Amino acid sequence: MISSSVPGQDRPANAPRRGRPGYDLASVLAVAVEIFNERGYDGTSMRDLADRLGIAKSAIYHHVTGKEELLRLALDRALAGLAVVTDRARALPAPAIERLEYLVRGSVEVLEAESPYVTLLLRVRGNTDVERAALDQRRAFDRFVAELVAEAVHDGDIRPDADAMITARLLFGLVNSIVEWYRPARHAGAASLADPVCAMAFDGLRTRRPSPRG
Amino acid sequence: MISSSVPGQDRPANAPRRGRPGYDLASVLAVAVEIFNERGYDGTSMRDLADRLGIAKSAIYHHVTGKEELLRLALDRALAGLAVVTDRARALPAPAIERLEYLVRGSVEVLEAESPYVTLLLRVRGNTDVERAALDQRRAFDRFVAELVAEAVHDGDIRPDADAMITARLLFGLVNSIVEWYRPARHAGAASLADPVCAMAFDGLRTRRPSPRG
Repeated sequence: MISSSVPGQDRPANAPRRGRPGYDLASVLAVAVEIFNERGYDGTSMRDLADRLGIAKSAIYHHVTGKEELLRLALDRALAGLAVVTDRARALPAPAIERLEYLVRGSVEVLEAESPYVTLLLRVRGNTDVERAALDQRRAFDRFVAELVAEAVHDGDIRPDADAMITARLLFGLVNSIVEWYRPARHAGAASLADPVCAMAFDGLRTRRPSPRG
Repeated sequence: MISSSVPGQDRPANAPRRGRPGYDLASVLAVAVEIFNERGYDGTSMRDLADRLGIAKSAIYHHVTGKEELLRLALDRALAGLAVVTDRARALPAPAIERLEYLVRGSVEVLEAESPYVTLLLRVRGNTDVERAALDQRRAFDRFVAELVAEAVHDGDIRPDADAMITARLLFGLVNSIVEWYRPARHAGAASLADPVCAMAFDGLRTRRPSPRG
């Protein structure tokens, strides 16, 4: 579902570039995101990145203008994945509860496919313009989720006592918490977590016994 | 339910101490946790702490031996709260599903009562002995949760397709995600999140309609 190319870049990641062989922009970006997630964006210097890559800083500047462009490219990659899912959920000709479940399922799949990028997105603090723009997009996403919850409550498909904003936060708190323990290498080939997440959130863990009033 | 005193300290927090008036150990600790959560433990120096408190570093050393003792006291406070809930859940003469729900509810209440301390606990990386000891306790807690889930599946109270470890992780991912947006000042007087969390996790968001087979 999610393109493996890097959105927002000027040239395809695999196009020939100057610089040391073996490091195209996508590889540099992958390593940058790894270090950002380990040390925090603020705590990472271009020197740290060059050391990890084993190349000169100047070789990195062949690819990007600096650290903030790496952050923007990385966040764009996570946000692009979520934007695809959001657009599809919005357009789905189905009740709000089904669009909501589609959005949760798709978000878990993006998180699994792009886990380092989504991890970075979730840790953004808003210290730079790039971070603030990403936070704005996260907030718009949260509002969309809350709207779907409110509509599903109105439809009678979600319990009437559910507060839309709290429910939206808990639902995506559940989804986003996966980055704390999900490791792509370890979970390769394992079933997606979309099923257990949706089962818990929408139907609950408790076995549904025949209703006494049924 | 949770004592407001600081477990693990040598003297009660309110006992008279040397040092500048207005800063007892509990106040120093509260400010330390605030800065640790803002900048990370590794990124905080005793100088940062002294500057925030507006006192000399030596005045902090009246209270503690250093930064790591502050970390230990702070983590102990979060862990002590969770230990009380865990012990009670373990001792409860009730089926596993009810002990699990008690544990979730109690953990949410600890998180609400001690949110900066629990936030710090959840961000621990394991770079020092104090952090590694806290991580060990978190892992023991996770195992206990997974055991309760497995027992509840065995009892037929949790859906048989639920994987115990994944379910435990999702359940406490949901609980722990609250620290990302819960602000004690803003939520003061609001209803506890324990109800919406348990409603979502155990019964699901979806309205339970009469079973067609009922």
